[in-house]
Amino acid sequence: MSTADGRRLDPLVARGRRAVERALSDLPAGSPVVLGVSGGADSLALACLAAFAAPRAGHRPVAVVVDHGLQDGSGAVARRAAEAVGGLGIADVLVRRVEVGASGGPEAAAREARRAALETVADQRGAAAILLAHTRDDQAETVLLGLARGSGTRSLAGIAPVAGRWRRPLLALSRAETERICVLAGLSWWDDPHNADPAYARVRVRRQVLPVLEDALGPGIAAALARTADQSRADADLLDGLAAVLARTAVRPDTTVDVEALVSAPPALRTRVLRVWLVGAGTPAGALTRDHVLGCEALVTDWHGQDGPTLPGGVVVRRCAGALHLVRPPA
Amino acid sequence: MSTADGRRLDPLVARGRRAVERALSDLPAGSPVVLGVSGGADSLALACLAAFAAPRAGHRPVAVVVDHGLQDGSGAVARRAAEAVGGLGIADVLVRRVEVGASGGPEAAAREARRAALETVADQRGAAAILLAHTRDDQAETVLLGLARGSGTRSLAGIAPVAGRWRRPLLALSRAETERICVLAGLSWWDDPHNADPAYARVRVRRQVLPVLEDALGPGIAAALARTADQSRADADLLDGLAAVLARTAVRPDTTVDVEALVSAPPALRTRVLRVWLVGAGTPAGALTRDHVLGCEALVTDWHGQDGPTLPGGVVVRRCAGALHLVRPPA
Repeated sequence: MSTADGRRLDPLVARGRRAVERALSDLPAGSPVVLGVSGGADSLALACLAAFAAPRAGHRPVAVVVDHGLQDGSGAVARRAAEAVGGLGIADVLVRRVEVGASGGPEAAAREARRAALETVADQRGAAAILLAHTRDDQAETVLLGLARGSGTRSLAGIAPVAGRWRRPLLALSRAETERICVLAGLSWWDDPHNADPAYARVRVRRQVLPVLEDALGPGIAAALARTADQSRADADLLDGLAAVLARTAVRPDTTVDVEALVSAPPALRTRVLRVWLVGAGTPAGALTRDHVLGCEALVTDWHGQDGPTLPGGVVVRRCAGALHLVRPPA
Repeated sequence: MSTADGRRLDPLVARGRRAVERALSDLPAGSPVVLGVSGGADSLALACLAAFAAPRAGHRPVAVVVDHGLQDGSGAVARRAAEAVGGLGIADVLVRRVEVGASGGPEAAAREARRAALETVADQRGAAAILLAHTRDDQAETVLLGLARGSGTRSLAGIAPVAGRWRRPLLALSRAETERICVLAGLSWWDDPHNADPAYARVRVRRQVLPVLEDALGPGIAAALARTADQSRADADLLDGLAAVLARTAVRPDTTVDVEALVSAPPALRTRVLRVWLVGAGTPAGALTRDHVLGCEALVTDWHGQDGPTLPGGVVVRRCAGALHLVRPPA
């Protein structure tokens, strides 16, 4: 394959462009697409690939550079990124300065602010999709962070390539490949110092854990983790769906749980229904442990008069008259 | 709790004994139980716990010390282990020397030889269960090895606590806890030099990967991996069962696959049915990759005349007349 000026097109760039095209293939013709840009190698590579692939697929790209305002000079970084994206032939480039709150920790707060800014622009422009530049390395890190929580198949499902309007076409590319795309395109990127700060668990996974895993188990580990994510996501989607169906029978309108409906259910569904029930009744998902769920399950499958677990907030689960009840502590 | 001679019973020993008792709770009364013993801390701890818990639950313990004959002096190691177990009050102690073949690598061959020896004794004595001393650390290592394969929920299910006659009552104890049980009982154990040989992937996981994971993500990592194993096993059991039901409709008596039966199936089941079909038709499971399976799935969900993947052995998967066929290469 060759470019218009006769130079050979790098196979990596061709692969990246195809990935972006595929990510747009189900969109209504002519709708604009928003690109989330930070100025890092991954999002500049995305802009570079989409500058070609989006118009070819009939979609006008709108690049949104988000300035989180978390570091001195973040405005200048955003302006330089906007200039670089403009130089790729993307005419519509916006810089959006956001206010990052504190809720859920610095990473979660920055993500929320960024997502809200991108959604606002997408709404204003009537964009059918918002493209994000997560790579296979982000996916591998997310799976390992999920594994460390030990909270099951859904936590291993990582980042979804498609979730509503959100699309992540670069999940099959490595971070190094996005850097190489930038080099090929003559783009210089910004290295966010947060990405090297070992205060973040994600940074420790990237810098300490993944290199040791590669060394001990072979260079295919990031790809293996990405495969795990894809398979776990498909499994979790089906199991969560089946559990939701079972919950409609098992959780009664008075919010008690019918023991009979769960006693012969497969354990994979029984534990999911109990979890959904407890979260639906107000237990914070982050504070609900596997032991809480197993304690409730024992009321169904191995009851000899015992009380169930005491949940965060002091609520006790109790079996009575063939149903599980939540007994709240006296006010 | 106190022992007969008035000394306080260590809570760890009490917990271990309860775990052994629970593992025997569904066995026919009076049946003997076989204990697999290597002479390592884990299996000596198992013998120590079972020496008390098995008779209390009405089961006579039969300890089998397996001598793999892989190292100089292995016979002496086995004899010392047999003496130690005899000193615990287990009257029935056998030493079985096995021949380790080469099939599947040294670890797999040793495991096969060991299992065969234990099964033979269990058959001869009419034992209802064979207890093995795998710990939570073994479980964590197995999950990480499965993760590195990237082959889905079943590969994350680790070691089953119960599989037919085989029982693993120590999966909730750490390796260090089995060593402490030995110390408390005055037992000295044998450190198998294979357990320190970095030629084995399992040893590299134990020595390199797990300490770094603990350091980066916190001390709960082995427990989190064990939780992942339990949840993945329940999920895989249900999904494999549902896929087997779907395969009965989708795989025809002539061993072709009915496209119609799969097209609207959930991806988690569709990919499993295709995998089961390909392995059932003779593709070696170890050589079958996720890409092979996804190539077959594309014949079902995204067919525009293309051939499917070429499998190990040169077999091509092809869609024809609403069915998937395996086209073998000319002899």
